[in-house]
Amino acid sequence: MLAEIITIGDEILIGQIVDTNSAWIAQQLNLIGIAVKQISSVSDDRQHILKALDEASARANVIIITGGLGPTKDDITKKTLAEYFRVGMKQDKASLEIIEGIFAKYNRPMLEVNIRQADVPENCTVLLNKNGTAPGMWFEESGKVFISMPGVPFEMMYLMEEEALPRLRKQFTLPAIVHQTLLTAGVGESFLAEQIADIEDSLPSHIKLAYLPNLGQVRLRLSGFGQNAEELTEQINVHKSQLKERISKYLITDVDKPLEKAILDLMDANKLTLAVAESCTGGYISHVITQHPGCSSVFLGGAISYSNEVKQSMLGVKTETVDRFGAVSEETAKEMSGGVILNYKSDYAIAVTGIAGPDGGTPEKPVGTVWISVANKHQVVAKRFQFGNKRIQNIQRSAVSAFVMLLDLIKADLQEGDS
Amino acid sequence: MLAEIITIGDEILIGQIVDTNSAWIAQQLNLIGIAVKQISSVSDDRQHILKALDEASARANVIIITGGLGPTKDDITKKTLAEYFRVGMKQDKASLEIIEGIFAKYNRPMLEVNIRQADVPENCTVLLNKNGTAPGMWFEESGKVFISMPGVPFEMMYLMEEEALPRLRKQFTLPAIVHQTLLTAGVGESFLAEQIADIEDSLPSHIKLAYLPNLGQVRLRLSGFGQNAEELTEQINVHKSQLKERISKYLITDVDKPLEKAILDLMDANKLTLAVAESCTGGYISHVITQHPGCSSVFLGGAISYSNEVKQSMLGVKTETVDRFGAVSEETAKEMSGGVILNYKSDYAIAVTGIAGPDGGTPEKPVGTVWISVANKHQVVAKRFQFGNKRIQNIQRSAVSAFVMLLDLIKADLQEGDS
Repeated sequence: MLAEIITIGDEILIGQIVDTNSAWIAQQLNLIGIAVKQISSVSDDRQHILKALDEASARANVIIITGGLGPTKDDITKKTLAEYFRVGMKQDKASLEIIEGIFAKYNRPMLEVNIRQADVPENCTVLLNKNGTAPGMWFEESGKVFISMPGVPFEMMYLMEEEALPRLRKQFTLPAIVHQTLLTAGVGESFLAEQIADIEDSLPSHIKLAYLPNLGQVRLRLSGFGQNAEELTEQINVHKSQLKERISKYLITDVDKPLEKAILDLMDANKLTLAVAESCTGGYISHVITQHPGCSSVFLGGAISYSNEVKQSMLGVKTETVDRFGAVSEETAKEMSGGVILNYKSDYAIAVTGIAGPDGGTPEKPVGTVWISVANKHQVVAKRFQFGNKRIQNIQRSAVSAFVMLLDLIKADLQEGDS
Repeated sequence: MLAEIITIGDEILIGQIVDTNSAWIAQQLNLIGIAVKQISSVSDDRQHILKALDEASARANVIIITGGLGPTKDDITKKTLAEYFRVGMKQDKASLEIIEGIFAKYNRPMLEVNIRQADVPENCTVLLNKNGTAPGMWFEESGKVFISMPGVPFEMMYLMEEEALPRLRKQFTLPAIVHQTLLTAGVGESFLAEQIADIEDSLPSHIKLAYLPNLGQVRLRLSGFGQNAEELTEQINVHKSQLKERISKYLITDVDKPLEKAILDLMDANKLTLAVAESCTGGYISHVITQHPGCSSVFLGGAISYSNEVKQSMLGVKTETVDRFGAVSEETAKEMSGGVILNYKSDYAIAVTGIAGPDGGTPEKPVGTVWISVANKHQVVAKRFQFGNKRIQNIQRSAVSAFVMLLDLIKADLQEGDS
């Protein structure tokens, strides 16, 4: 079973927003055995939308459409869908009630354009949007399903979870798609490929292996396509075990989760706590950690020590250390992580200090120079990294490197404890 | 002049990565007067890639292709492009030298698959990729330009900036596209639309107005299309002035920059400093601020006070305050922002404490309850917000609300100073 996703809106095409909806929708569809054939972003333009609907429905059975459902003039998805299906519009009473409720709650005057948000093409089944003023819509034509939802992420997510996915499961007998992912760090894509070439060559044609490199990490993804999810899972697990054994040295986790979540889970299972001191990463490491619900059992907090004064007053870094070695140095990084262990009373600490760029470099410490230190209560280690000259990328790379260093230290400690 | 972007790779279609490249590419193309007609994500599948190339080149003159250039077997873009153009492959010596240099630098063994990364279709002009092992490629056929680049964001960005964009500017006589953006906060999309309906109706057909709502903010974007950038800018500025006057109450900035950057610029111009205390936002506010180069003139740092102990030890929040009113309370929020001013010696402070969810709510303080406090050296204000039950969204909404509260306080202080 194939789906296509069409996102409608000039804001994506001029690059003013990044389309995060499509990745989320694709994940959800995959989980119920629907593969996405193509994702297309088109403009708020009648003919372009009609053409995209034609092309997508020629390739797929499920067409998911997001965006263009706002109350303003540039939003034309609804009337274009009515034209596509050659029908008129009708008012949906239940949607109107929700819209009235929202305006009453926020005590805002209800305008004509808001009332018209309850209008939908005659042939649609309304998917009630309890989080917003734009109703979701479900259409069926010639055995194909078209689902139109607002582009606001949380409204779209609600409609997918509560309405679209359960209905798709009922409508179609879905084949099985099984993915298994191995996360590695500290090794290149082509080196990995060479290591596992024979395993890759031995894969049956309905199981594919993909390499997903990203900032010092490589995800290996096995994807199987078939009729029986259980059989498929068994088959994939055989190949997964072969891969795991072969790349054990670089393996972070064999579950599809982010690096930091793997660390949080390991620390939580061993009742370990973490605090951080972030200079050049400026809160990014803490943010990455605290995206995850339940992280508070592990993560105590930290200091964003952007200025040298804060490094000294909040972390106890010595003035003479900064004066003598500089804020970006092994000594400062180590005093930062040591200061974290002391002040935050955590089992582990991460400290990062560097020059994220694009300015601020010197000949000895060019932009991209980053010192990372990790510590436990007995040991402080530090390592120098030389990244590039892109600020955001330097911040992200620093975070990944810090997580890998932390994981290595924790693993070593746990092994020592075992022995 | 129209372009299309094709991203190749199953990882986007199964939702394992979000396509951030396309938005960035679209922005860059827009700046030189090339509009993006469609963005399509297709799979690592020969026929699908060929079809996408056909469709895109029927609509546009410039086709930008990213992804599928890795050394591994799932990457088939290069040989598919050779098939599309009916040519063989050749080895590019300059690319091979770069690849050899990279492997020498990291002291890694060079494999056969790495050597083959220097192979390109015979009809292409190589765009030298100095940041990676996959060369960029420039093709011309029947007056159309095809540009293929790796999907790794910083490699793609380098190739766009250094090679593709300068060449496109040389190749085509480009029309002008001018965008102007007004950022508003604290008011709904349809209310805004009602306020400016007459201005919108009076726009000439070559100037369009779009509404881009996002988490309590609405961007109004005027886009003009024409021959002469200067004339177009003048015309757009007339309409922009009308809009600015009409919505002055809700206007954050009339330059296309993010909310936090507008605040940083205002604070920098007035030599003001900021520090933060983040509980439920967990570093996100600091991260959003420190994405911006040069923020260190304003931003001193902050505390991620995830645990109550840290709130007390690092911010001076009283134990009895947390015991009596709870960690999520007006009193705690105010003591946090007051503690920031005191400990970090900043001119302004932001403090956020709340229940981001999905768990941890109570009947009196359900998930989504957030107290935000902002302070200067003389004044501490706090406000309660009730967001929804999505963690990431609650974190983001808290940040936006905190920024708006901070901006209000700073503006009031500056006006007072003026009078």
